[in-house]
Amino acid sequence: MAFSDYGKYDALGLAELVAKREVSAAELVEEAIARVERLNPKINAVVFRTYDRARSAAKLPLSGPLAGVPYLLKDILGSQKGVPTRQGSNFMPPAPAPHDATLVRRFTAAGLISIGKTNVPEFGLVPTTEPTIYGACHNPWELDHSAGGSSGGSGAAVAAGIVPLAHANDGGGSIRVPASANGLVGLKPTRGRNPLGPDLGDIMGGLVCEGVLTRSVRDTAAALDATAGNEMGDPYWAPPKAKSYLDEASTPPGKLKIAFTTKSIFGKTFDPECVAAVQQTAKLLQSLGHHVEEASPTLAADQMMQAFMPVWASGLAMLIDGTAMLTGRAPHESDFQGMTWGLYQMGKQITASQYQMCWFQLHAAARQVAQFHETYDVWMSSTLGAPPVRNGTFDFHEKDPLKAFAPIIDYLPVTAVQNATGQPAISLPLHWAQNGLPVGVHFAARFGDEATLLRLAGQLEQAKPWSNRHPPLWN
Amino acid sequence: MAFSDYGKYDALGLAELVAKREVSAAELVEEAIARVERLNPKINAVVFRTYDRARSAAKLPLSGPLAGVPYLLKDILGSQKGVPTRQGSNFMPPAPAPHDATLVRRFTAAGLISIGKTNVPEFGLVPTTEPTIYGACHNPWELDHSAGGSSGGSGAAVAAGIVPLAHANDGGGSIRVPASANGLVGLKPTRGRNPLGPDLGDIMGGLVCEGVLTRSVRDTAAALDATAGNEMGDPYWAPPKAKSYLDEASTPPGKLKIAFTTKSIFGKTFDPECVAAVQQTAKLLQSLGHHVEEASPTLAADQMMQAFMPVWASGLAMLIDGTAMLTGRAPHESDFQGMTWGLYQMGKQITASQYQMCWFQLHAAARQVAQFHETYDVWMSSTLGAPPVRNGTFDFHEKDPLKAFAPIIDYLPVTAVQNATGQPAISLPLHWAQNGLPVGVHFAARFGDEATLLRLAGQLEQAKPWSNRHPPLWN
Repeated sequence: MAFSDYGKYDALGLAELVAKREVSAAELVEEAIARVERLNPKINAVVFRTYDRARSAAKLPLSGPLAGVPYLLKDILGSQKGVPTRQGSNFMPPAPAPHDATLVRRFTAAGLISIGKTNVPEFGLVPTTEPTIYGACHNPWELDHSAGGSSGGSGAAVAAGIVPLAHANDGGGSIRVPASANGLVGLKPTRGRNPLGPDLGDIMGGLVCEGVLTRSVRDTAAALDATAGNEMGDPYWAPPKAKSYLDEASTPPGKLKIAFTTKSIFGKTFDPECVAAVQQTAKLLQSLGHHVEEASPTLAADQMMQAFMPVWASGLAMLIDGTAMLTGRAPHESDFQGMTWGLYQMGKQITASQYQMCWFQLHAAARQVAQFHETYDVWMSSTLGAPPVRNGTFDFHEKDPLKAFAPIIDYLPVTAVQNATGQPAISLPLHWAQNGLPVGVHFAARFGDEATLLRLAGQLEQAKPWSNRHPPLWN
Repeated sequence: MAFSDYGKYDALGLAELVAKREVSAAELVEEAIARVERLNPKINAVVFRTYDRARSAAKLPLSGPLAGVPYLLKDILGSQKGVPTRQGSNFMPPAPAPHDATLVRRFTAAGLISIGKTNVPEFGLVPTTEPTIYGACHNPWELDHSAGGSSGGSGAAVAAGIVPLAHANDGGGSIRVPASANGLVGLKPTRGRNPLGPDLGDIMGGLVCEGVLTRSVRDTAAALDATAGNEMGDPYWAPPKAKSYLDEASTPPGKLKIAFTTKSIFGKTFDPECVAAVQQTAKLLQSLGHHVEEASPTLAADQMMQAFMPVWASGLAMLIDGTAMLTGRAPHESDFQGMTWGLYQMGKQITASQYQMCWFQLHAAARQVAQFHETYDVWMSSTLGAPPVRNGTFDFHEKDPLKAFAPIIDYLPVTAVQNATGQPAISLPLHWAQNGLPVGVHFAARFGDEATLLRLAGQLEQAKPWSNRHPPLWN
């Protein structure tokens, strides 16, 4: 392998080269490191380097389906022993983790080698990555634009060809948004599919899921095979899978009943580029033999968001107050961006009774969406309401959470639904706007049914391949 | 069948007679009604009668494994269209339910016919059934003693021979406690095993499970076969079962590794009758070939209860405040027993951040218990810390929840653990105290592993049968 070709391979492709001894894990790690050093000054995707441990790991015997492939961990969750995780916040102490998260152990068991941690917005609260602690992450396709969030650094790093796969997680769209903004595959698995242990049972009652960002559908499938599955002590389980997700990704989906929409759950029509993405995808799906029609779940969207926000805000309050208890250092306004502080203040006011009432309403919304899926296998839309915004678009100084989040909610037209319901959903890079920026198309399936999403994604990747599309800084 | 023999049959036994046309569903319903009318003045187990609808149902074609068998629903959850559920509280409006709960639909699909609703403590908060609204329920084995709670009415009705099976649910021991107090089989299934829909996704973040009380292990297994399984819109799923629970109940358990204890999770030694129950059962288990030794999970019990109580209290606050919103009638102290009012006041003060921190701690406790089960298949103890108390033992006028609950926590030495962890646990009638009152023995297994409990329960029922033991008012 010529190292200039490194970026042309997906994770499974690189693993195959390692298995054939055409390249060594050590060489891949060095190439990934070289790319961080060359590209990161432009995109600011990597915020913590673990080169030494990566070099050591590459020297050890490796096994697993992704043996020898370099990857990146997100600066939220993804604890690796000895490495700090700061969640994009100066308030979080740079304390090294006492042990690996189960997810990271499974990444390691699959043969992956982490070379560092990636940029995130403060506490992962917003769909663009501009934290005070690290500075803004930049979209490789257009550097003054947002790489999305909260897994923005992971998205930018994968799109720029630094690594073929990066860790990500999603509590309102944070895997799917950077997938959309960076032209990547981003699957939010079913609630409970990927582990949160041993440190956590769930997060915010089940909103947050672990996952990855990749450039190919099969990499997403292989990563899910490597990480999925419950461990003892988990508070609940996802429905079991029938066969390997990698197999699913190359299995024809059959004729699916697919609903699509060009409007947000609040009834607002997407940006014309996103409408075009949806309409072109609808035609493509029809040409592939699927039954396609315009429809959306009946959903009291305002009520759902009024239930979602307090869960989100009080989850932040729990995190900040819990950290304050551990460190003995009280939170102060100057520790945070204005919006974070405002949301924290809001979150502190919410009672446990209100919180449980919010989940009562979110569970009711899940029943409504489930009813919709009695008819439809898949619900298709745009992932974002518009192509990636410029960095600086959203006002993180605004302390009123309702004002601060209003434009953000327009930008995120559908993704929070699946965090509330626990359903799997995937963003696929099926469209590019006239300005050259990627526009993801979003597919949600029934609870537990990643298989349908991966089958369909595999079919769409074949029908409209994106592997030859690269950002300008690619080479 | 002579109707005097009605009580000798379990639910599957009665269903077999119906299937063979030796008796009709209508005759069984009439016999159950006659027994309510004869026995209820003594035990006050049934608080709402649905005789007309039961008689109508008995005339319709019936199918299912329990076709034609009368049963009772608890006055908490178990919604049946047109029937009120008041949760043992005058504050809850006697409004007829708009539809059946999924659980009740499944009971009906199994062929069961409900003849009414059973007594519960106010909101099911305590392990003895003495609500102001209905008055105290009495233990059929000794009428001035408690039938346990919160499923006390269901327990008393099954023990008295009114019905062979009754609906129950468990958020801290409420299936297992009346099983222990009334000499019955009471299985709390794994979190997510039985449905809470369509009205609810979970309760208090997952503490509460649905189930039944029966006199035989096979009835508990058959009922679980009838009710278990997820429906779309559920927030999470239990691990799938390998085969029918009825089959499991007659499958030898093999050689299990069983830990036992004669102490509560707080380190307090059980009442001598309960110690004797545990020690005799340990010997029995050994004689059956199991590996038996004294051991308990490492558990920060005080910390666990300090996390459990706020979840419990704020769940009550959510219920009362949510009801107030619906009815437009604010709660007033005079609507409640003092302890309920005190717990409600406590619950209102808890913040959403604290609530999530409590669940963080309960999830951590679940990891500790899971670690214990890496070594042991089953953890055995007494279900209650003592034989059934007399009614009037606990002070429901005490408004300080910590004072009110202190003696109750001693009485409930282990059961709340499995509500926190989500594990299945069963109480079996393996001991009777010198005063003739039943003492249940408690078995907890790994998350999702009802199979092991039912296999072991089936073995113990054969080794030390209890079907010939009846309370004095029997026949």
